[in-house]
Amino acid sequence: MVYRLDKIFDDSKVFYKFDPEIPPIGRVLPGERTRIRTRDCFSNQLVDENQQLSSIDFSQVNPATGPLYIEGTEKGDALVVHILKIITASSGLVVSLPGEGFLGEDVKTSKNRRCLVRDNFVEIAGVKLPYRPMIGVIGVASSDKHPTGVPGRSGGNLDTKYITEGATLYLPVEYSGALFGVGDLHAAMADGEVCVSGCEVRGEVELEFSVLKGLAPAWPVVEYGNTNYIIVSAGTLEESLKEAARTTVKALSKAFSIDWNDAYMLSSLVADFQISQLVDPKKTVRVGIPSSVIRAEDLLKAMR
Amino acid sequence: MVYRLDKIFDDSKVFYKFDPEIPPIGRVLPGERTRIRTRDCFSNQLVDENQQLSSIDFSQVNPATGPLYIEGTEKGDALVVHILKIITASSGLVVSLPGEGFLGEDVKTSKNRRCLVRDNFVEIAGVKLPYRPMIGVIGVASSDKHPTGVPGRSGGNLDTKYITEGATLYLPVEYSGALFGVGDLHAAMADGEVCVSGCEVRGEVELEFSVLKGLAPAWPVVEYGNTNYIIVSAGTLEESLKEAARTTVKALSKAFSIDWNDAYMLSSLVADFQISQLVDPKKTVRVGIPSSVIRAEDLLKAMR
Repeated sequence: MVYRLDKIFDDSKVFYKFDPEIPPIGRVLPGERTRIRTRDCFSNQLVDENQQLSSIDFSQVNPATGPLYIEGTEKGDALVVHILKIITASSGLVVSLPGEGFLGEDVKTSKNRRCLVRDNFVEIAGVKLPYRPMIGVIGVASSDKHPTGVPGRSGGNLDTKYITEGATLYLPVEYSGALFGVGDLHAAMADGEVCVSGCEVRGEVELEFSVLKGLAPAWPVVEYGNTNYIIVSAGTLEESLKEAARTTVKALSKAFSIDWNDAYMLSSLVADFQISQLVDPKKTVRVGIPSSVIRAEDLLKAMR
Repeated sequence: MVYRLDKIFDDSKVFYKFDPEIPPIGRVLPGERTRIRTRDCFSNQLVDENQQLSSIDFSQVNPATGPLYIEGTEKGDALVVHILKIITASSGLVVSLPGEGFLGEDVKTSKNRRCLVRDNFVEIAGVKLPYRPMIGVIGVASSDKHPTGVPGRSGGNLDTKYITEGATLYLPVEYSGALFGVGDLHAAMADGEVCVSGCEVRGEVELEFSVLKGLAPAWPVVEYGNTNYIIVSAGTLEESLKEAARTTVKALSKAFSIDWNDAYMLSSLVADFQISQLVDPKKTVRVGIPSSVIRAEDLLKAMR
């Protein structure tokens, strides 16, 4: 099989804020197969189980490689990111430290653990679990210039396991060229990411972009496994769920031309309210609706 | 194919509290295929889209058919419930009313909607969605005598969509005979059950019981689709998640003989923290761990 690869970017240029003023490191056309190398969430500073987390420079966490200027995208469009391939390093690190993660108050001492990737398994502390590579940080430039470590309306540290190989992500474009960045791969991360990290690894992603003119969604949407997920982040889990529920009911009401009550009842039967992560500066939830009930493009239209 | 059916119970005898003093309606042996008819969550009082919810007797909501005395079960055992089949009526009702459900404050007027089941779809307000029958209320007698409408440690209104055909549920036995009851079927219900109800239907379930001596888990566990889920309910979603996280980390620490920090990090990679329902008197979450990582029986042992 001939393997077409149009553009390659290494991880020498990264950014830490989705700031439209950061100059792009390159330009990509819709349809070009693009390979992007990424640093791990510690910017490759943490290399050892015995190293103290305090030894690293925290201004360099959650780097995103980029930004990339995606030709043909304008404010108001949906940038469509086809996630073709994720290749992770064969080893990564997980961290736990007092005050961090969902049980931060229970953590007595710090500990780092190496996790190894081999034969489609991740191994940590002698336990083997499924290898499920995914992307933590992915997004486009935003007027709020939020740090890459924070999830939001234009993407960011979304930390949701369905942003993985085979998924299609829809992000709202705020600036010409979108100014896209990606980083923070995990060899495994479960819903919640309770300890504050996944198996944090460096790696490479292969993406292909396309554009849906004028269809910028109110929140990122990811299509994976015959389901469309709306990805919502707010200050608390409760706030994220409220915003997600209101967004969902409003969208279903518009999509099917039914009143608010009917859309509320429909949501109760078909819209799965799920947790993505509980441990970032904002909390992320996702609402899954089968693609057989509503196609991604129709969902984007109904979210406008 | 010869279809063996050992015991049949109709829905004339129901109960509303998991109270050990309610006399059993029958006795079942482990291994007997048992069919149980159930009323809907309104005790079949709501029959029409135009009927006011206020017209029904609210002391008769969430009935469980039973209790059944399961031979050979004693305090401290795990009652194993194999869910062989769920047959629902071909029509049910969903309700929305001011103050109820996750967006109760946004509901302006009451509305009931009939949902129809046909050809493996549920139809509501003209929208077709997948038919996914599941059991809302399932549990055994408990010393706290909690209402059937409340979820808890011995089961109850668990409202989790994985308590469905093909699942195996593990419940902690508190009294000889377990004193099991089941009801509140849904033709469809999504994670969250945001509007306060699923597609509420009457129907029948076919179950088979077995017993694991001395393996009563701290919380119900359901095995479904190659995953074991711990089902935790507490006053708020946050409290449920904290208890679920602590239960999970402790169980993984014990199961794999690893320290607390390692179990915390392992949870972050492999234990999915999910929402079952947001709208009952207690909120229900579930933690999914692949059966390939830990078998149900080993999880029950580690939860003791």
